[in-house]
Amino acid sequence: MAFRKFLPLFDRVLVERFTAETVTKGGIMLPEKSQGKVLQAMVVAVGPGSVNQKGNLQPVSVKVGEKVLLPEYGGTKVSLDDKEYFLFRDGDILGKYVD
Amino acid sequence: MAFRKFLPLFDRVLVERFTAETVTKGGIMLPEKSQGKVLQAMVVAVGPGSVNQKGNLQPVSVKVGEKVLLPEYGGTKVSLDDKEYFLFRDGDILGKYVD
Amino acid sequence: MAFRKFLPLFDRVLVERFTAETVTKGGIMLPEKSQGKVLQAMVVAVGPGSVNQKGNLQPVSVKVGEKVLLPEYGGTKVSLDDKEYFLFRDGDILGKYVD
Amino acid sequence: MAFRKFLPLFDRVLVERFTAETVTKGGIMLPEKSQGKVLQAMVVAVGPGSVNQKGNLQPVSVKVGEKVLLPEYGGTKVSLDDKEYFLFRDGDILGKYVD
Amino acid sequence: MAFRKFLPLFDRVLVERFTAETVTKGGIMLPEKSQGKVLQAMVVAVGPGSVNQKGNLQPVSVKVGEKVLLPEYGGTKVSLDDKEYFLFRDGDILGKYVD
Amino acid sequence: MAFRKFLPLFDRVLVERFTAETVTKGGIMLPEKSQGKVLQAMVVAVGPGSVNQKGNLQPVSVKVGEKVLLPEYGGTKVSLDDKEYFLFRDGDILGKYVD
Amino acid sequence: MAFRKFLPLFDRVLVERFTAETVTKGGIMLPEKSQGKVLQAMVVAVGPGSVNQKGNLQPVSVKVGEKVLLPEYGGTKVSLDDKEYFLFRDGDILGKYVD
Repeated sequence: MAFRKFLPLFDRVLVERFTAETVTKGGIMLPEKSQGKVLQAMVVAVGPGSVNQKGNLQPVSVKVGEKVLLPEYGGTKVSLDDKEYFLFRDGDILGKYVD
Repeated sequence: MAFRKFLPLFDRVLVERFTAETVTKGGIMLPEKSQGKVLQAMVVAVGPGSVNQKGNLQPVSVKVGEKVLLPEYGGTKVSLDDKEYFLFRDGDILGKYVD
Repeated sequence: MAFRKFLPLFDRVLVERFTAETVTKGGIMLPEKSQGKVLQAMVVAVGPGSVNQKGNLQPVSVKVGEKVLLPEYGGTKVSLDDKEYFLFRDGDILGKYVD
Repeated sequence: MAFRKFLPLFDRVLVERFTAETVTKGGIMLPEKSQGKVLQAMVVAVGPGSVNQKGNLQPVSVKVGEKVLLPEYGGTKVSLDDKEYFLFRDGDILGKYVD
Repeated sequence: MAFRKFLPLFDRVLVERFTAETVTKGGIMLPEKSQGKVLQAMVVAVGPGSVNQKGNLQPVSVKVGEKVLLPEYGGTKVSLDDKEYFLFRDGDILGKYVD
Repeated sequence: MAFRKFLPLFDRVLVERFTAETVTKGGIMLPEKSQGKVLQAMVVAVGPGSVNQKGNLQPVSVKVGEKVLLPEYGGTKVSLDDKEYFLFRDGDILGKYVD
Repeated sequence: MAFRKFLPLFDRVLVERFTAETVTKGGIMLPEKSQGKVLQAMVVAVGPGSVNQKGNLQPVSVKVGEKVLLPEYGGTKVSLDDKEYFLFRDGDILGKYVD
């Protein structure tokens, strides 16, 4: 697990937003940020998933290391080792970038 | 997959709105746009679908390359390679044009 | 399928409202229209239906060519070939006229 | 079917409200009407019922010809052959009179 | 069935509120009424019960002749043979008095 | 059953709040009451439980005689034999004290 | 069970917030507290879990002794033996720290 210290619960996903420059290096141009927030991020830790009505575990649909597109709103800020991360529900992440 | 770079998650569908002219070439006259928005679009990428309470995957009901009619409201704007796309939930797309 | 160009999705039904005169010819007197809207309409295209929690397809309960009674409110206006149609959810259609 | 012209959809029930006099003749005294509306009515047509999550049809719980007690509010007015009827959901009808 | 004339539908229960005196005779002192409403009542008729998602009938949990405690709010007034009754949903009745 | 007179319905639980002194005798210090309400109480009667979607009875999770912690808000006041009790839903009771 | 006196019900979790200093000793720096509230806490007691629609018990996903991250809002304050604890629903706890 890339990130040893913190394990999200249920279907939560811990992400680290890209800084503006890294986005351009990656070749995916995002000219305008949304209210100054970069919407691309790297998945650093994922929860086990959520349990549906039948009691079956529904695993999270993104993996550690994947690049994802975040919604403009939502997410919970989490500080770990003086760095800023964000927790999103799996279902709120819009999509992932495939190389 | 027509669009290699971005994979929508769950039941989201990535579409590219037609420009006004292409609509008339296609023979489907849409005299008035709704608040200046063209409501016809091309599907460029689809998510895997959503999982129902029983844990079964419910695939998305439109395919890449199909022409669809969008609702007036809703959708999330997504910029990829300096082009403007929109993400809609499968269930919010009104219908598709069959030739 | 009476209407070849547009296929509604899920449990949506595409209808064409009667003009005031045709209503009287059909022998079904509707003296007062509701806010100027004729509430009788012809079904011109139907979606495949909706999928319930168990993943089973629940087909739409009206067929192309049937005369239906629309609710006063709701419905989405759709222009196709310069003609005005309306999309309603199957569950919102009040009933159908049987000869 | 007592009423040949109109078939309600799903779990809707078409009723005809009693006129004030018929109510007294029937021996069921309803001294005060609710906001001038007679709450007793005759069932004239019923829909097939609603489909539950398992896809099973749940038939309507009243039959054509039964006398029912309507709630004070709700219902949709329907004009058929210049007569005034009302559509109620099966679940909103309070009860039925048994002779 | 103690009350022959009216059959509640689904999980509705028809009750007749005690008059203030009868309550004291029964030995259950209710010193203060709630906004002038006696909250004890006798069950006079019950519906068949409600149908759950699996289509099984869930019978009502009180019987004709039982003394029940009503919530302060809710209920629908019903006049039958010039007498005042009330309809409550089974799930809204707080409890029953056991001798 | 410690309390013979009143049987709560469904998943309701009848409790009697401790008076301030008894709380201290029991060795569980609750220095500040919440808006003057003692939040500890004794269970005096329990309903049969609630029925889930599959029709199975889900029994209540507290027993007569157990000491429980009530939420600050909610609950319905019930007077029985001139004494004051409260009805809570099983799911709203926060926890129970184990000796 | 580390904490003998109080057993949370259903999917509730009893936690004790860290005091500001202990947080730094543990090596997990949380420079800014949220509105003066420390968001790290120790699990001291857990409920049995919640029951899903099928009647199966869904156990709580944290254990006594684990260090968890609390959401900024929510939780119920509980005083036991003059010490301050908080009750959270299992589903509201954001994640846990793994050494």
